[in-house]
Amino acid sequence: MERLKQQINFIVEIDKLKSILRRSVLMDKSRNENDAEHSWHIAMMALLLKEYANQEVDVLKVVKMLLIHDLVEIDAGDTFAYDSEGYKDKEAREQQAADRLFNILPKDQAEEIFELWNEFERRTTAEACYAAALDRLQPLLHNFYTEGVSWKEHQVTSDLVLERNSYIKDGSETLWEYARDLIEEAVDRGYMKK
Amino acid sequence: MERLKQQINFIVEIDKLKSILRRSVLMDKSRNENDAEHSWHIAMMALLLKEYANQEVDVLKVVKMLLIHDLVEIDAGDTFAYDSEGYKDKEAREQQAADRLFNILPKDQAEEIFELWNEFERRTTAEACYAAALDRLQPLLHNFYTEGVSWKEHQVTSDLVLERNSYIKDGSETLWEYARDLIEEAVDRGYMKK
Repeated sequence: MERLKQQINFIVEIDKLKSILRRSVLMDKSRNENDAEHSWHIAMMALLLKEYANQEVDVLKVVKMLLIHDLVEIDAGDTFAYDSEGYKDKEAREQQAADRLFNILPKDQAEEIFELWNEFERRTTAEACYAAALDRLQPLLHNFYTEGVSWKEHQVTSDLVLERNSYIKDGSETLWEYARDLIEEAVDRGYMKK
Repeated sequence: MERLKQQINFIVEIDKLKSILRRSVLMDKSRNENDAEHSWHIAMMALLLKEYANQEVDVLKVVKMLLIHDLVEIDAGDTFAYDSEGYKDKEAREQQAADRLFNILPKDQAEEIFELWNEFERRTTAEACYAAALDRLQPLLHNFYTEGVSWKEHQVTSDLVLERNSYIKDGSETLWEYARDLIEEAVDRGYMKK
């Protein structure tokens, strides 16, 4: 039962992801979103939007990546997409977190999660590109449907949003086209500065 | 783009799952858990514990089931596992919810989700039995690690907990053995009445 105990310890530990808050606000504006529910939401998106991936993808692999992609934030915290300062030591902080967290698991499973997480971060495979596209598209939707709450709060401009989200294109040309229209519409409606 | 619009409408609509509260309390006791983060957690469990399923399972199908299994609660609300009264019209309320929600999607995707949800509810396949086992095991863990907060609040006895969770066995003999030990330990520690 030693193996099962390690797995349960990990399952208990990752409960903390539910308390890591993001800058995104729920669509009903009631509160900030947390990493666990964000991960659920983009895993759902991966299933529903896979026909728009630029290349055929192994959707189980994509879902796995999305379910685990934010676990490191349990220790490293959420780094806001438009926080240049926070991005400087993001990699080091997250690597340390991965070492502690993933190694709670039995070795074979720790290795699988390390690989999935590294693949997601590097964005060099079709699965990682598609997964990363969804991870970017979802907060755009949240911002749009909350009339730009988080864009306004952080005074983000459309140029920056276009730049930081442009790699959606690497995962899905169609979703990037959709995202650009959404950003344009957001500017027209005054949700974000040009 | 009509198809994509329907899909995005659904993705926006299901954001509401993040506001459906369960009786389970987060492991740090800070607040009640919501359905979206619960779904994320059991999807993670499905990936990590699949070696304990009684039969070989298609894990992508299991994960899909778990990600969508509570969507109907957006309209129907959460029915507490030990609420006999609430269970009387649970099926009717949830069927109505499924009709409204799933049909926001394009027809082929609505049908797929209907099938997955029905399979999960009926528990007649290896995938559904394993998925249902995890959906039961996770709240046991939450109750145990919060020293029985929700068991105490609702004055649940170990006999009832054993009865309501016994179908964990149909999905995994090993996890049922683990769950029984956990329940026994919970009684010993005074987290729940015998």
